[in-house]
Amino acid sequence: MTHHDCAHCSSDACATEMLNLAEANSIETAWHRYEKQQPQCGFGSAGLCCRICLKGPCRIDPFGEGPKYGVCGADRDTIVARHLVRMIAAGTAAHSEHGRHIALAMQHISQGELHDYSIRDEAKLYAIAKTLGVATEGRGLLAIVGDLAAITLGDFQNQDYDKPCAWLAASLTPRRVKRLGDLGLLPHNIDASVAQTMSRTHVGCDADPTNLILGGLRVAMADLDGSMLATELSDALFGTPQPVVSAANLGVMKRGAVNIAVNGHNPMLSDIICDVAADLRDEAIAAGAAEGINIIGICCTGHEVMMRHGVPLATNYLSQELPILTGALEAMVVDVQCIMPSLPRIAECFHTQIITTDKHNKISGATHVPFDEHKAVETAKTIIRMAIAAFGRRDPNRVAIPAFKQKSIVGFSAEAVVAALAKVNADDPLKPLVDNVVNGNIQGIVLFVGCNTTKVQQDSAYVDLAKSLAKRNVLVLATGCAAGAFAKAGLMTSEATTQYAGEGLKGVLSAIGTAAGLGGPLPLVMHMGSCVDNSRAVALATALANKLGVDLSDLPLVASAPECMSEKALAIGSWAVTIGLPTHVGSVPPVIGSQIVTKLVTETAKDLVGGYFIVDTDPKSAGDKLYAAIQERRAGLGL
Amino acid sequence: MTHHDCAHCSSDACATEMLNLAEANSIETAWHRYEKQQPQCGFGSAGLCCRICLKGPCRIDPFGEGPKYGVCGADRDTIVARHLVRMIAAGTAAHSEHGRHIALAMQHISQGELHDYSIRDEAKLYAIAKTLGVATEGRGLLAIVGDLAAITLGDFQNQDYDKPCAWLAASLTPRRVKRLGDLGLLPHNIDASVAQTMSRTHVGCDADPTNLILGGLRVAMADLDGSMLATELSDALFGTPQPVVSAANLGVMKRGAVNIAVNGHNPMLSDIICDVAADLRDEAIAAGAAEGINIIGICCTGHEVMMRHGVPLATNYLSQELPILTGALEAMVVDVQCIMPSLPRIAECFHTQIITTDKHNKISGATHVPFDEHKAVETAKTIIRMAIAAFGRRDPNRVAIPAFKQKSIVGFSAEAVVAALAKVNADDPLKPLVDNVVNGNIQGIVLFVGCNTTKVQQDSAYVDLAKSLAKRNVLVLATGCAAGAFAKAGLMTSEATTQYAGEGLKGVLSAIGTAAGLGGPLPLVMHMGSCVDNSRAVALATALANKLGVDLSDLPLVASAPECMSEKALAIGSWAVTIGLPTHVGSVPPVIGSQIVTKLVTETAKDLVGGYFIVDTDPKSAGDKLYAAIQERRAGLGL
Repeated sequence: MTHHDCAHCSSDACATEMLNLAEANSIETAWHRYEKQQPQCGFGSAGLCCRICLKGPCRIDPFGEGPKYGVCGADRDTIVARHLVRMIAAGTAAHSEHGRHIALAMQHISQGELHDYSIRDEAKLYAIAKTLGVATEGRGLLAIVGDLAAITLGDFQNQDYDKPCAWLAASLTPRRVKRLGDLGLLPHNIDASVAQTMSRTHVGCDADPTNLILGGLRVAMADLDGSMLATELSDALFGTPQPVVSAANLGVMKRGAVNIAVNGHNPMLSDIICDVAADLRDEAIAAGAAEGINIIGICCTGHEVMMRHGVPLATNYLSQELPILTGALEAMVVDVQCIMPSLPRIAECFHTQIITTDKHNKISGATHVPFDEHKAVETAKTIIRMAIAAFGRRDPNRVAIPAFKQKSIVGFSAEAVVAALAKVNADDPLKPLVDNVVNGNIQGIVLFVGCNTTKVQQDSAYVDLAKSLAKRNVLVLATGCAAGAFAKAGLMTSEATTQYAGEGLKGVLSAIGTAAGLGGPLPLVMHMGSCVDNSRAVALATALANKLGVDLSDLPLVASAPECMSEKALAIGSWAVTIGLPTHVGSVPPVIGSQIVTKLVTETAKDLVGGYFIVDTDPKSAGDKLYAAIQERRAGLGL
Repeated sequence: MTHHDCAHCSSDACATEMLNLAEANSIETAWHRYEKQQPQCGFGSAGLCCRICLKGPCRIDPFGEGPKYGVCGADRDTIVARHLVRMIAAGTAAHSEHGRHIALAMQHISQGELHDYSIRDEAKLYAIAKTLGVATEGRGLLAIVGDLAAITLGDFQNQDYDKPCAWLAASLTPRRVKRLGDLGLLPHNIDASVAQTMSRTHVGCDADPTNLILGGLRVAMADLDGSMLATELSDALFGTPQPVVSAANLGVMKRGAVNIAVNGHNPMLSDIICDVAADLRDEAIAAGAAEGINIIGICCTGHEVMMRHGVPLATNYLSQELPILTGALEAMVVDVQCIMPSLPRIAECFHTQIITTDKHNKISGATHVPFDEHKAVETAKTIIRMAIAAFGRRDPNRVAIPAFKQKSIVGFSAEAVVAALAKVNADDPLKPLVDNVVNGNIQGIVLFVGCNTTKVQQDSAYVDLAKSLAKRNVLVLATGCAAGAFAKAGLMTSEATTQYAGEGLKGVLSAIGTAAGLGGPLPLVMHMGSCVDNSRAVALATALANKLGVDLSDLPLVASAPECMSEKALAIGSWAVTIGLPTHVGSVPPVIGSQIVTKLVTETAKDLVGGYFIVDTDPKSAGDKLYAAIQERRAGLGL
């Protein structure tokens, strides 16, 4: 194994410490694999490689000296656009599959099945019913649940191309619905949008880059629909997040406990595991784990249980292999998405059980325990008992839990934000926010989304950008692995607000935090949840826009994905643009091979939908561009 | 432009003549572009390139000296499997989108809309109703149409994962439905299967090659479902094909006519164009085209109108650019799939109008005339008049229509085959076929499917294989670009039967042909239609298997795609395997980078589902393997 300068890999000191341990033990991690992949293919990086038919692979010479066309005749623009929209479709499919899972659970609950689940947040259920136009007066809860499930599943079923998905139509600003409807950018059906994206990118189909990219924006809006319904129904099922004090980084692991990591994205099983863990505490103690069972989170499943149960977050995507290296992880239970296939190979060197649970998401070398919602508690117990058994195989001499542990205040759902604001103005909770945007104490809002990628020093771009924007009085929201980065870096604390916020922002966060009884300012970065939970930010922004009587594209609101990696991130970024947000990406999508596609997404999109991509790998200049975009929006509002 | 040995490009002498013309005029065709693409990427060819997230592109060293894992940790098997199943999903999406289009038209017809369409084949409609269990007794036609549309659209809507698609469940042998149901290989919903394939292949999801490949077979079965419903409903709408004498190759173009090519796959517009052309004949004559309007077909749209209207076929996929080079093509009207994006660039050198019609399938440089079923006749007239106008811009000095024109007897739907057999035995039409399989006059049946690819000399593998198998008394069926190859090569004639069939086969084809009043043997190759029409062969085989009380995997029936190219072809091949057929591919899919995946699809599949892939680029040995597979099946039946 080549020697590695670990400090370049991650700005998370805990991760670098663990990477040194990996080096010392010749354990290969994502960073080593990345190094071995260098140099990466330039054609693929630019999007100029096409493998959609067996006449290929075809490659376009970016410098114009070699082939200009694929065998079929597709040019660079078509090749780049086709690949990009397929990536967006895949991201949409992933998020929405998560949503379908929740919607089907709701349907089954309404039918009297799934006895391990219930509607924990009836207020949220009624709020959703109101949004979707479902009658509640004098009706039983399960009947309402059934109607909501039917409407939601309708977004996977409707065959009328001109009838927009119900959740989008009910949730966005009226102006946005009209504008996107006129442009044909409101999807009618999530699955059909994905299938039609695959169909139109088949060989010999769409060969008009503009048409393709518009198709990409349409399917990206289906991603927003799927995310929105996943988030909202999860809240009804498991509870709407409220601020809770938790902790982050590997120091949350306990030497004296059976440590079980939940990794992936879906709360359906992980939420039950949190419940059941308490019941099996005695079994763990009997097995020698004096501190019982310690559930820890990784990636977005981590955020789901962090926000609802206060479960601490071990780490985010890129460092998900490292908890195993502590020698103190008994099991990692994974569901769907962003789970490294390398986990079983690393776990082999330890006593850790890697347990897959979803029938469509198995991993060679892992143990598969099929998850069935009808037997959720039973499945959860089986898994926890496997972890307890593994505890007996732990080698105490190899246990090395790093000391990094950071307090994090998390759980700022849109409802929680409004509730906090209501402490300032109970009659008109949004007024304090609007007033402070108008008076400039808050210059604007930035939503950090997305992943980690080996192409950027882990977490660093998030931290740099957030500090830079907060200093300029920009309110910072975050989800997913962005939220993970901020939690580990200590930016989800009152102290961070005191230390890094500009004066205006600091004053606002202090006033709200104090009024809300936090005993200090709100954290510098507001944790909004997992990556499907980006819809929470949309909900908040929509409420703000509706209050001001403007569209989402008028707000001083920007998005940033400085370490975007997954196809879901591309889908999120694309709908962020489509709902009108200037959207920064710091990891370059494979579009630079086409000037037409690049221009479409970075410039033309602004005229069409108000939003546009800002591609910049330098956090400093990206911060300046985002701030400038905020100022442009403020000017548009006359501020 | 480099000089090109055109005889190596195509075994179609007409194509090579036109390629020489292209050379002389420095017009670049697919073959030139293929040459410019050499050498093609070895990583991509082997399937060892991954571009599903932004940490990549990643490449696995096929020789084991470089990287073994992608950055995420995916190994060669996962990378190969993920890409392959995405290709199958794309093919499924394409075929099924075509099917959805027809199903929605049926729904709209049932609602009293679409006045330019009607149910032309009521007998077929009633037959479909019987298959799908829709009551007909005493009901109005439109009510039945409405029910069929609803059941069909249900195959795009059903959310119960364990309830198989209605068309598959109603159409396959009971044993096959049971076997695939037990294996979880019967899809519940076409769109959901595509979306779930995209979801499970997102970064960090399914990393078990076996699980992935099984998922690929499941979504491939959704391709069969989509193809089946597209074909059957098209028959009800436009008529079930019956044998008709037509012609093939560029000699079908007429110097004195307005030549309009229909290219793509969907009959919705092209069928109307055929009708309307007669009405506008006088306008064409008035514009100087003494022979009126000459509709010609390309690719599968060509087969749709060839079988139902006797419209001659100009050519198949790979040579679709060449009709423009005759200088006598006024317009090429394209719908969806396998349409070369190069067409407008070539058309620019002539007077030819390239007209796109589908909102999801535009081409830069083409003229877009949006097709709306509500105004089908109007759209068809607009397009034909554009062609008539283009005739006025034709340069007579550049007109060079090659002399190649081949008689072709086409239109052998399953119903037409049974009708022909009924002339031999009216009470039990399948008996003559069964008897001749049993007595060995017919050793077995081969279905040729798929495309052309620049990796194989155009059409040659089809012709070589068909002759080789027919000589050994194998009955030959063909669809799509395979059928195009055979039509151009003169193998869809009685003469070909006399010349190439083995004695047993010749006797059978002669007896049936004579009884059916053809005045000679049935053609050597039976033309079953376009590529969605592969379901016709499945219907015939299912009838045969049910008569014998066996499963599809017991029949001496094999499939061959010696020039497979598109993702649809991979989907077709994969469902052919899944329904139990030994299936030859002569163009190597990107799987050879994984021994596990290769073994799964070429060996393990046989134990699971009865069918398996035979990968062989040499037509001679492929023929021997297919014949051996037929003999193995015969032995299994005790023959």
